Amino acid sequence: MNNKTKQKLYEIIYEADTKAGKAFDIVLLILILLSVLVVIVESVSSIRTDFSIELKILEWVITLLFTLEYFVRIWIIRKPIKYIVSFYGIVDLLAIIPTFLALFIAGTQSLIIIRAIRLLRVFRILKITRYTKEGKILLQALIASRVKISVFLFSVLTIILIIGTVMYMVEGEPNGFDNIPKSIYWAVVTLTTVGYGDITPQTPLGQLISGFVMVLGYAIIAVPTGIVSVEISNEVRRAKRERVCPKCQFADHDEDANFCKKCGNEI
Amino acid sequence: MNNKTKQKLYEIIYEADTKAGKAFDIVLLILILLSVLVVIVESVSSIRTDFSIELKILEWVITLLFTLEYFVRIWIIRKPIKYIVSFYGIVDLLAIIPTFLALFIAGTQSLIIIRAIRLLRVFRILKITRYTKEGKILLQALIASRVKISVFLFSVLTIILIIGTVMYMVEGEPNGFDNIPKSIYWAVVTLTTVGYGDITPQTPLGQLISGFVMVLGYAIIAVPTGIVSVEISNEVRRAKRERVCPKCQFADHDEDANFCKKCGNEI
Amino acid sequence: MNNKTKQKLYEIIYEADTKAGKAFDIVLLILILLSVLVVIVESVSSIRTDFSIELKILEWVITLLFTLEYFVRIWIIRKPIKYIVSFYGIVDLLAIIPTFLALFIAGTQSLIIIRAIRLLRVFRILKITRYTKEGKILLQALIASRVKISVFLFSVLTIILIIGTVMYMVEGEPNGFDNIPKSIYWAVVTLTTVGYGDITPQTPLGQLISGFVMVLGYAIIAVPTGIVSVEISNEVRRAKRERVCPKCQFADHDEDANFCKKCGNEI
Amino acid sequence: MNNKTKQKLYEIIYEADTKAGKAFDIVLLILILLSVLVVIVESVSSIRTDFSIELKILEWVITLLFTLEYFVRIWIIRKPIKYIVSFYGIVDLLAIIPTFLALFIAGTQSLIIIRAIRLLRVFRILKITRYTKEGKILLQALIASRVKISVFLFSVLTIILIIGTVMYMVEGEPNGFDNIPKSIYWAVVTLTTVGYGDITPQTPLGQLISGFVMVLGYAIIAVPTGIVSVEISNEVRRAKRERVCPKCQFADHDEDANFCKKCGNEI
Repeated sequence: MNNKTKQKLYEIIYEADTKAGKAFDIVLLILILLSVLVVIVESVSSIRTDFSIELKILEWVITLLFTLEYFVRIWIIRKPIKYIVSFYGIVDLLAIIPTFLALFIAGTQSLIIIRAIRLLRVFRILKITRYTKEGKILLQALIASRVKISVFLFSVLTIILIIGTVMYMVEGEPNGFDNIPKSIYWAVVTLTTVGYGDITPQTPLGQLISGFVMVLGYAIIAVPTGIVSVEISNEVRRAKRERVCPKCQFADHDEDANFCKKCGNEI
Repeated sequence: MNNKTKQKLYEIIYEADTKAGKAFDIVLLILILLSVLVVIVESVSSIRTDFSIELKILEWVITLLFTLEYFVRIWIIRKPIKYIVSFYGIVDLLAIIPTFLALFIAGTQSLIIIRAIRLLRVFRILKITRYTKEGKILLQALIASRVKISVFLFSVLTIILIIGTVMYMVEGEPNGFDNIPKSIYWAVVTLTTVGYGDITPQTPLGQLISGFVMVLGYAIIAVPTGIVSVEISNEVRRAKRERVCPKCQFADHDEDANFCKKCGNEI
Repeated sequence: MNNKTKQKLYEIIYEADTKAGKAFDIVLLILILLSVLVVIVESVSSIRTDFSIELKILEWVITLLFTLEYFVRIWIIRKPIKYIVSFYGIVDLLAIIPTFLALFIAGTQSLIIIRAIRLLRVFRILKITRYTKEGKILLQALIASRVKISVFLFSVLTIILIIGTVMYMVEGEPNGFDNIPKSIYWAVVTLTTVGYGDITPQTPLGQLISGFVMVLGYAIIAVPTGIVSVEISNEVRRAKRERVCPKCQFADHDEDANFCKKCGNEI
Repeated sequence: MNNKTKQKLYEIIYEADTKAGKAFDIVLLILILLSVLVVIVESVSSIRTDFSIELKILEWVITLLFTLEYFVRIWIIRKPIKYIVSFYGIVDLLAIIPTFLALFIAGTQSLIIIRAIRLLRVFRILKITRYTKEGKILLQALIASRVKISVFLFSVLTIILIIGTVMYMVEGEPNGFDNIPKSIYWAVVTLTTVGYGDITPQTPLGQLISGFVMVLGYAIIAVPTGIVSVEISNEVRRAKRERVCPKCQFADHDEDANFCKKCGNEI
């Protein structure tokens, strides 16, 4: 094959502007979701025994297609090494090797988790769609708030540790608070308002302390929300500010606007 | 009946400006709520056996009134086909057919869900009340944030899938994590802080991972809240901006203001 | 007693500016909390039998003091009828009558709830403290968002009704979803992320639907938070705006500022 | 040792600007986390019996290092009394005495909680890191919203008390609502959406009331979130305002900016 075919394939596989490129992305997306679905349904024992052969065939078809895609990707890109060691390159590789490894290793069970990594391939599709801009704003907001969130999480973990220790002292072994790690597990379950109910305070004092822990958990959830709200607000404003009309400098455009609503100039 | 009667009926049924129109809306609202109530209480076996005849009569009275209303609506409107195929037209039809179908089909049980659709009729009333403006702001905010929310939900679903698979590996069948779908169900229950407690981690490692999942769930709830807060804030500002005083251009009016508080001009 | 004594008593009981007035408020607050505590501990059977006489004495002492206060309030105020029929007047009356009624009626048990109304008396104290301003901002924000919150709650209730009916169809009687009301109870428990676990879906389809309900509940909690955030933000800004410097019109003062930070003028 | 050594030690222990100071902080951080870990794992009975001697040795090594550090801190500081009675001085002392006390007192178990106080030492490290600024913003926001949060929490506690009493009347002793304190515990568990499920309403009326409590809890969580969001937003703006360019007065700088983006002047 000559360079032109290579160029064409590059456009189809790595870009999404052409019709063929978009079709490729959709087919790939379906294949990825299908491959994840195979992993999921195979874990259900009744399905595993009833559709053993069908699942195995599907597994191999998908794996071979992924393998083909992987090598084509390496072949047509200018810097193959850079792709291979990139995040997506490694994910693409991890998506195919478990099936081959299963030929040599008996317990495929232990490869299930690596096969689940295939799901990460879905991000490949999203990377090149219109969702990126919005996702970028969210990501930027989370990155901007990472230090505040860390401080918050560290404080929460300290509180959880102290509560866990106190409750271990108050309730003790007979009531399910066997040791501090288990007590901490209870504290996490309670403070995050999950509340399984597998371990619950039995003594009046323990129930009183639990009450305060719950109200505390209910109140401090406000903190990360406040942090992220402010940062998303900042990011949205920043994203808007980048869309300033070059003619009249008006900046408060709607997200879907293509022309300045003040002077009609194209933005 | 002549055209004048038709016009009068149109005003009563389709509009809410006249006294009769408002009375009609209230009667309709009560009938709708009553019809939903009949469906609900009929599902309670003790009530179903004790008040069998009363419920049947009530059911038929409401259905016949709805049927009458449905045909009157078709009759008085200028474009009947447009109404019949509209959302409300279909809902109005679905509100009456189950009772008639029950005459021919034995198991009325299976029609219960269609009968519950009647509740959607309530929106008909709301459509023409003052709640619409506020509802519109909320709806606009949700629409404006739909892409960000989608990106968020997709990320959450990916996280849930990975957590579910990991926990299936860690806990396994003896502890209730029978297969990946069930494990994913547990992950949803935990990450959303619902925490039924029907499936709980038993191993120390499982409890450790659960703890991280809970804290994660506790933290990422901040993201949709932040998104919606920002969008509601934008929508409220936009709604206010539409109420600019035509004389002095002042824009920050209270929601219940009828006159500009700066120059006294009517807004 | 002459008018001067009456005036003095009025200042002590109805106002909080004088030293005696503040002391009265604190004594009253302690009495109110004590009276509520008596109601609470009396419900614990072991305490009720062991401290029967002590509780009865305490109950009567508090009631007689409240009775005395009630009649003094009526005596010293200019418009007694207005006080008697006011919210606080009724609460003050309800705080004393259960104890007297218990003399004539055997089952004091049924009066416990009316005795709990005493707690509402606590608001009397708060009414005249510095907390009022902040409470007012919160209340104003909630009032300003009442229509939006109503629309939201109505939508949530509709969703809950539909989910409840669907789950009754899917799970049915053998799995605890006995009837639609119980199914709706489950839907509320799940959508609000409370998650008792007393009723849980058993079928795979039920668990799948539950998963969507949970994610939905997780996402829509963002809506009221967004609404209230925006309104609190508006109220805080409005409260600040009322503190404009009369000399230089500067408005962005800190909450504890007494002088304009731009021109030094008293605000 | 002369004054120069003392000065050097002061820089290492109390400051973090030098290389040695940073190294000291990291070693101290590891020691603190290790000491907390010892307390935690010692509570697990299987580990306590298997690694009894190892844990005891580790415990004593850490305690002696902490003791050494404590006395060096006293020795090198100019005002030792001020350090000893300071928050960190007391925490440092509490971190070492339990181990020594265990020599004389039989049940070390009861000292576990004091030993857990060691964790508070971690804040010493954080005090001098770059996290302080962000933590300060969060703390300032929480301080600024303390009155609003108090008003909110007081209202919530009143609601909880009333709900608890009502449910005690409705459900009563046979259904687990033994007395008002336990009923209040249930109300806290439900309103905060924790939902253990150890006590659940059994009567239809109780389930109906619970439903309203849950929706209420779901809605009012919006209030603290709104409060904190607004305050964080204010604090972030205030923190930014302090970074005004001295040359051109431009104020909206990015957090990591060192130069004014308008005029290039150093901020």
